[in-house]
Amino acid sequence: MGTGLHVAVVGATGAVGQQMLKTLENRQFELEKLSLLSSKRSAGTKVLFNGKEYTVEEATPESFEGVHIALFSAGGSVSKELAPEAVKRGAIVIDNTSAFRMDENTPLIVPEVNEGDLQQHQGIIANPNCSTIQMVVALEPLRKSFGLNKVIVSTYQAVSGAGTVASDELYSQTKAILDNEEYEPQVMPVKGDKKHYQIAFNAIPQIDKFVENGYTFEEMKMINETKKIMHMPELEVAATCVRLPIETGHSESVYIELDRDDVSVEDVKDLLKSSPGITLQDDPENQIYPMPAYAVGLNDVFVGRIRKDLDRPNGFHLWIVSDNLLKGAAWNSVQIAERLRALNLV
Amino acid sequence: MGTGLHVAVVGATGAVGQQMLKTLENRQFELEKLSLLSSKRSAGTKVLFNGKEYTVEEATPESFEGVHIALFSAGGSVSKELAPEAVKRGAIVIDNTSAFRMDENTPLIVPEVNEGDLQQHQGIIANPNCSTIQMVVALEPLRKSFGLNKVIVSTYQAVSGAGTVASDELYSQTKAILDNEEYEPQVMPVKGDKKHYQIAFNAIPQIDKFVENGYTFEEMKMINETKKIMHMPELEVAATCVRLPIETGHSESVYIELDRDDVSVEDVKDLLKSSPGITLQDDPENQIYPMPAYAVGLNDVFVGRIRKDLDRPNGFHLWIVSDNLLKGAAWNSVQIAERLRALNLV
Repeated sequence: MGTGLHVAVVGATGAVGQQMLKTLENRQFELEKLSLLSSKRSAGTKVLFNGKEYTVEEATPESFEGVHIALFSAGGSVSKELAPEAVKRGAIVIDNTSAFRMDENTPLIVPEVNEGDLQQHQGIIANPNCSTIQMVVALEPLRKSFGLNKVIVSTYQAVSGAGTVASDELYSQTKAILDNEEYEPQVMPVKGDKKHYQIAFNAIPQIDKFVENGYTFEEMKMINETKKIMHMPELEVAATCVRLPIETGHSESVYIELDRDDVSVEDVKDLLKSSPGITLQDDPENQIYPMPAYAVGLNDVFVGRIRKDLDRPNGFHLWIVSDNLLKGAAWNSVQIAERLRALNLV
Repeated sequence: MGTGLHVAVVGATGAVGQQMLKTLENRQFELEKLSLLSSKRSAGTKVLFNGKEYTVEEATPESFEGVHIALFSAGGSVSKELAPEAVKRGAIVIDNTSAFRMDENTPLIVPEVNEGDLQQHQGIIANPNCSTIQMVVALEPLRKSFGLNKVIVSTYQAVSGAGTVASDELYSQTKAILDNEEYEPQVMPVKGDKKHYQIAFNAIPQIDKFVENGYTFEEMKMINETKKIMHMPELEVAATCVRLPIETGHSESVYIELDRDDVSVEDVKDLLKSSPGITLQDDPENQIYPMPAYAVGLNDVFVGRIRKDLDRPNGFHLWIVSDNLLKGAAWNSVQIAERLRALNLV
């Protein structure tokens, strides 16, 4: 292998794909060659990368000849079809869809949490759901130091997780309401679902479709992925996921119970302050706490509002914010690629 | 006493005061006389009520001569000064501020929950915090039928709870962002606090100022008021309160633990469906669940997304929505007045 890698980005024109390219630029990722791939519909689009113009090509099995790392973010069905083709041709796939996340043979990776699982990969590595990633980055240091047995999360999720069509709808609908004009919801909460609701100035307690047990797929993803990434099938996890009129940046109100009763708020703050990938923003007296609008464009997970539960000595409340397109997607994927390189796995 | 009452509305020009007048109209409340009162600053404002024009007068101790019921919603300091003056003159005060809520001798009333406490009133009756009211309306039937021992709530609160200045800021700031214009946050999260943050397309995890324990006053209100209204000092309650770019309508993601292990989702649905003040909106298959934008202008508390916790047989998750200016303030106050009348207490 030469000094650089041949990297392919599948879904290069999408919201996450665009952030992947920006992240590769920002991180000065050592590239020998870059292939930008997409659906037939978006093929032909011109994209700038490091000042050079690339033409997006339609992704086919043959596109992956010679590719070392393929970053997939073009929907689950594209991953299911083409990821195995890429692997067959020698590429390592880092897949940002839910297609392989719960597959036994696919490691589900958040580098700060379970980088070791990369060693077991069989070609495909899954990038977790955005809302799961930021939560486990904050929970893992607590698990390691104090033990963790229960998690209850309520999310405050941005629309960009549902793609650029969702961001477009938020802005155009907001404008229509301000201008007192008619509008018809067409995208949110779930493109292609039976009903659509106003997202501007509203809160929609549905992300992804519903499962038979009354939870949504998004909620079940948070529950199942957290257990898998943290290697804790026995962990109690509950989630309620809510879509809000925020363009980018997911927030989470998280209640946890630790194994130990003797942990203080200061202990938690000290630990998180020195943990990888986390910026502590917790100074109530000076109104310092994380907020999505101020986390956009940053790679870290921001944690604040850390409080001890008033009834249970092992209970804590946290407020966790991150850019859902970066740590929740593009940055976590590129970070996996960086770690593969550092560990000589590619 | 004649057929109607002399009612005074203190804070008649404010967001809640306006809703109080609208509610008195809609309920065809039997009025013999109506006094509209305000601060010196708003005195002189003309207000229409039932098609008749009223002039708002400055509230003074003498304003309450002959008044039977005084609805206060002009801030805590006004209530502290003038509510005792009104009581001295024979009025019953229904106070929408936090001034007397935790006072031992002041009943804190949500009619669906603790109407009986009205009997003990000594002149002042407190209307609880908006986010508390909608939660206890949903929790009380569950407590009665199944026992309740733990509540963890994360709120999704509208700006109108912070007054018309907050609503104005949300809209003008949203417009500035859409138009790519400069703006300077001046109101949210707390008017008069040291720092102000963008509320448009953002989530701010601060409502009211901070207490020394790291919780906000809003969070402590939810915790303490819930215990008082439900007569459960031993109830475990935790709250995280978050302000969102929503004009009206509070939502709450609530986790509860019941005393009984054998309760099903159907049991909870059947119970809430037939409970006072509640509209059940819970049909995931048809995407039916409560949302703030669709609850505006309605008096009920809307409950949906009812799910059994996947780990604890006595654990349930609920999503509770209500118009914070109506059941959260104006309607609950007028409802208290109606109940006083029905119980021959006025």
